[in-house]
Amino acid sequence: MLSIEDENNQKKKVALIGCGLIGQSWAISFLSAGFDVSLFDPVKGVTKKAKEKIKAKLSVLQNYGLLKNKNISDYLDRIHLTQDLLHAVEGSIYVQESGPEDLDIKKELTKRIDAATPDDIPIASSTSGIPTSFYASDIPGQYRCLVAHPINPPHLIQAVEIVPAPFTDETITRAVKKIITAIGKEPLALKKEIPGFVVNRLQGALLNEAFNLVKEGISSAEDIDKAISEGLGLRWSFMGPFQTIHLNAPEGIAGYVKRYEKMYRDIFNKTDIEWSSVVNRGLE
Amino acid sequence: MLSIEDENNQKKKVALIGCGLIGQSWAISFLSAGFDVSLFDPVKGVTKKAKEKIKAKLSVLQNYGLLKNKNISDYLDRIHLTQDLLHAVEGSIYVQESGPEDLDIKKELTKRIDAATPDDIPIASSTSGIPTSFYASDIPGQYRCLVAHPINPPHLIQAVEIVPAPFTDETITRAVKKIITAIGKEPLALKKEIPGFVVNRLQGALLNEAFNLVKEGISSAEDIDKAISEGLGLRWSFMGPFQTIHLNAPEGIAGYVKRYEKMYRDIFNKTDIEWSSVVNRGLE
Repeated sequence: MLSIEDENNQKKKVALIGCGLIGQSWAISFLSAGFDVSLFDPVKGVTKKAKEKIKAKLSVLQNYGLLKNKNISDYLDRIHLTQDLLHAVEGSIYVQESGPEDLDIKKELTKRIDAATPDDIPIASSTSGIPTSFYASDIPGQYRCLVAHPINPPHLIQAVEIVPAPFTDETITRAVKKIITAIGKEPLALKKEIPGFVVNRLQGALLNEAFNLVKEGISSAEDIDKAISEGLGLRWSFMGPFQTIHLNAPEGIAGYVKRYEKMYRDIFNKTDIEWSSVVNRGLE
Repeated sequence: MLSIEDENNQKKKVALIGCGLIGQSWAISFLSAGFDVSLFDPVKGVTKKAKEKIKAKLSVLQNYGLLKNKNISDYLDRIHLTQDLLHAVEGSIYVQESGPEDLDIKKELTKRIDAATPDDIPIASSTSGIPTSFYASDIPGQYRCLVAHPINPPHLIQAVEIVPAPFTDETITRAVKKIITAIGKEPLALKKEIPGFVVNRLQGALLNEAFNLVKEGISSAEDIDKAISEGLGLRWSFMGPFQTIHLNAPEGIAGYVKRYEKMYRDIFNKTDIEWSSVVNRGLE
């Protein structure tokens, strides 16, 4: 099993490839947990700018009392700027790629990372919806590739989706869960790959309905926002959708489905709503 | 325009018909805002039990420091238990019906309320999805019928959907918004009727995807709950879905749609995702 600390109980180094908003945010998470980070971005000048932006974000966190260490330099000193991929991954126990959401770019970038990175080091992608099978099936090191999708802003939100491909080695998946847990995050491991994973499928389903309601002239975008931020979102901020409906009928989730399944089927004019069959199988 | 206070600046009385969980919760909202409430439930014994349950809920609120007045009796003294509909609506400036979510029952109950209630008094239903056109199109007082749908638990959540039918008088809709605002709630007025309104269409779209993900073996219900409660819900608790995506891309909502519309279309294998057309019309 992957060791995340050296012989002096110091957290080791991770490599962050792609230094946009998401890469910067990952840097703060890893730095806050005591890791060193190597930064590299294929676009010239971005790596250096990223350190400035990380510094600015750390200052904001400090102003809100959200930083453990008093001195921002304690964090900045553990940032290693690199000029090429090889230096970034050298000595790193983990690679987190946060490149653009483009299949061709991700294929090419993952291939380059795989060629540069020592065997058995996990290569995780921050992609918010592209399964690893789509971009890594042609590369030699596919067994150590998988998705670790954070929720924006990653340095503040706990959930991280872990999505292995069928060809991902289970040891790698376990190691990535361990690393994600070590930075205080909550790894949510999918059992199967699916485009959009869980988070963006849930968000996308809600967004699609939201856009349709505006398009059909039912409600303003502003009121839809309030329906969430002064309505459903207050419940969802501490309990999920299943917990919510479990508490929304006297007999729990089974009672809710019994009462409302037909209503939802009528609302959406859909025959493929089969909630009761899921409940009957114990929601497994 | 409806006056909600008497000549001594005392809040007037409202009638709450149907005293289950939702009716009890409405009672707390109206009592907290200084109104008197008449309670009536067509099922024998329910009205009296409801007062006990309201008392218990007020105690819980008091324990958490969420009650303005020190003495619970200040609230309980303004509850009027009634044995029949006529006494409940007598002298009330507003009727809130919270009967079962059943079209036939709602038709019959609304007919009875309409016959008993003085002209021009609004009759609002707590229904979570049935448009007023479905249950009130046959009654003489249809012009003063509409939906005022609260979010469970109504005494804690601000948003209330106001959904007039095409036959609802605009004066009535305005009066109901005024009353809902007077109890510290946020009225979200729909421009057109639609089954499920906004809140349950948004919740239903998300729930349907959640049930499907469990059914397809992609994720456990527990992890789906965490994807919301430790992920998306933290954002949605203070900003709605449109505000969220506006902040999720450097160029705002238009940039988000430009970047991700295709991804969502691919995820759901749907051709009817036309977010950019909505954005291009200024999200109106």
